[in-house]
Amino acid sequence: MTDVWIAGAGMTRFGRRDENLPDLMAEAALAALTDAGIERPDALVVAAMNPEEFTGEGNYGSLIATRLGLSLVPALRVETATSSGVAAVYAAFASVAAGLHRSVLVVGGEKMTHLPTPRVSEIIGRSIDPHEKSYGTTMPALAGLVTRAAMHRRGFTLREISQVAVKNHAHGARNPYAHFQEPVKLEAVMESRLVADPLRLFHCCPISDGGAALVVTAERRSVRIAGIGQGGDSIAVRYRSDLTTFRATQTAAQAAYRMAGFGAERVEVAEIHDAFTPFELISLEDTGLVPPGKAGRATLDGETAMGGRLPINPSGGLKARGHPLAATGISQLVELCWQLRGTATGRQVPARVGLAQSIGGLATNNWVTLLEVRR
Amino acid sequence: MTDVWIAGAGMTRFGRRDENLPDLMAEAALAALTDAGIERPDALVVAAMNPEEFTGEGNYGSLIATRLGLSLVPALRVETATSSGVAAVYAAFASVAAGLHRSVLVVGGEKMTHLPTPRVSEIIGRSIDPHEKSYGTTMPALAGLVTRAAMHRRGFTLREISQVAVKNHAHGARNPYAHFQEPVKLEAVMESRLVADPLRLFHCCPISDGGAALVVTAERRSVRIAGIGQGGDSIAVRYRSDLTTFRATQTAAQAAYRMAGFGAERVEVAEIHDAFTPFELISLEDTGLVPPGKAGRATLDGETAMGGRLPINPSGGLKARGHPLAATGISQLVELCWQLRGTATGRQVPARVGLAQSIGGLATNNWVTLLEVRR
Repeated sequence: MTDVWIAGAGMTRFGRRDENLPDLMAEAALAALTDAGIERPDALVVAAMNPEEFTGEGNYGSLIATRLGLSLVPALRVETATSSGVAAVYAAFASVAAGLHRSVLVVGGEKMTHLPTPRVSEIIGRSIDPHEKSYGTTMPALAGLVTRAAMHRRGFTLREISQVAVKNHAHGARNPYAHFQEPVKLEAVMESRLVADPLRLFHCCPISDGGAALVVTAERRSVRIAGIGQGGDSIAVRYRSDLTTFRATQTAAQAAYRMAGFGAERVEVAEIHDAFTPFELISLEDTGLVPPGKAGRATLDGETAMGGRLPINPSGGLKARGHPLAATGISQLVELCWQLRGTATGRQVPARVGLAQSIGGLATNNWVTLLEVRR
Repeated sequence: MTDVWIAGAGMTRFGRRDENLPDLMAEAALAALTDAGIERPDALVVAAMNPEEFTGEGNYGSLIATRLGLSLVPALRVETATSSGVAAVYAAFASVAAGLHRSVLVVGGEKMTHLPTPRVSEIIGRSIDPHEKSYGTTMPALAGLVTRAAMHRRGFTLREISQVAVKNHAHGARNPYAHFQEPVKLEAVMESRLVADPLRLFHCCPISDGGAALVVTAERRSVRIAGIGQGGDSIAVRYRSDLTTFRATQTAAQAAYRMAGFGAERVEVAEIHDAFTPFELISLEDTGLVPPGKAGRATLDGETAMGGRLPINPSGGLKARGHPLAATGISQLVELCWQLRGTATGRQVPARVGLAQSIGGLATNNWVTLLEVRR
């Protein structure tokens, strides 16, 4: 298997954007191609969770290839719900690893803020098990269920899950690409309005627009994709043996560590899928970055903050950087790439190995990716 | 690069089906797994063009994995408009070729007949260039434009494009999986009602439901994927230098022949994307199976019929077997696999090498695949 390297990384500022989705993707793609010094990649992989319903347009592989002036370049679209961005990176990785292509541009994005929130919620809700959805379940409702179970069985506290928001907003305040660039106080998080008991507004990521892109290549560069692993779990939450851990993350992490030939002990920075802040705590333990039962304490003690033992979500995470669905998984890798290269101005942490974890649906289709810098 | 073989093939009968899409996909997938003698593949790739709008459900990778009792198996969804099925085969091929997985189940399908035709047309129309769509363009309208241009510039006749329908319905009459299993007469085709001048109803494939599946593997079996190639073209038809050939097919064919190490001269049977019957003529020449300007004559002379020099669409093609979008590209390979193994009961042709050609959108994202039997 050919080694796969990251030649270029780029993204748009996330947030409420006036541009349409092809323009957001093009902005990110051109930044990544420029960074890579490549004009014409051998192939293109596009990630978008549901552009047909969010934007009214489909055939996104060909649409984005044409928008980029690359209409003759073969283009695929890949989708795994909210983790689609990493799924697209995986498809590109496989093509390069197999020797089918030398360089592949991966670009993901979503445009959502132009729609009313109930419509966004309906579209995102298509990734819920149909039977469970028939009872009126929404993503925040399922996340609330998971959180309540984790508080009851694993002792998660409201203070801990609120501190994740405080930390990630503090990080986002240093990131010019973040949707929210303002710190928030613990009291403001804990007193924000209830969304799905016990989750409050500031425990939930925003609805964001944005794009992110990578160029992967078989040519040696400074940052290598050392491991990439995927894990699945039942789309029906009621069939799971445990609500308070995500088996899909555990499987993905094992696969990524196996491919990389090293474990959590070498990870020095991570981007974690905190669509709901308690998911950061769950995921820290699922990936083995923090021992079982210790994630809440580690967060309160500042271990996962910038300057701590293991900085988590220096970008601000989904909570503060924002969550334009299919852009998110790629943007995590863009951030790690910048961190490993030492170019994350204003929020640089010292690291040679970074981990990204992405959740698709209600943890039905998760990914763990390991990046390593070779100087 | 590891050689990639087809371990199993299966499909549902295409047509108007009462089952929902997960059930159709499951029927095809279980047939392919049974054929392969494999219970649990290492990974799953799902193809569906737009299940969110056709069925109201999304997250199809996880949904189908769960439906198959394979919820712990990593699952991707891949989409390239109407050629999505082959795109999924490519993703599986790349994973196996790279050594990332040993066996991958690929399943594609679509459920459309429960919706009114104008709504189906609207959903399919999302793969048209947004600017061209803003003038009211539909897929049949664009196909009519291409056909009129081909009649004017390349001398295609109504009799030739009608004979494609007659031939493919005659083939479909021998295929128990086909949507239409009745022959049609030339006069009936030429006198059927006008859809988009000069295309009449019997020049156009039907709206169908159905599923198709393959298991690909690194283990040696009888049928090998000798080559798989993709080609792109501008989503904006107005930007193309020529309306009467499909550059995306030409590029895909060159790539497939290059990978296989042989050319059109070794192909003895082919499945061609005849969503509109003139596309069969265009594609025969684009793939090099018939010399430029000869496809119409070859069709009238019976060269492309069962028993002719080069049988085209022994399954009945999209015209008679039907066109459940993302199932179609996979069903072409299922048919070729059965033909090469010698198990296409009632419609068997003698062949050691088969070619499948699939069109995404209005020829924006096309694929050519070569299968070879090794006895």
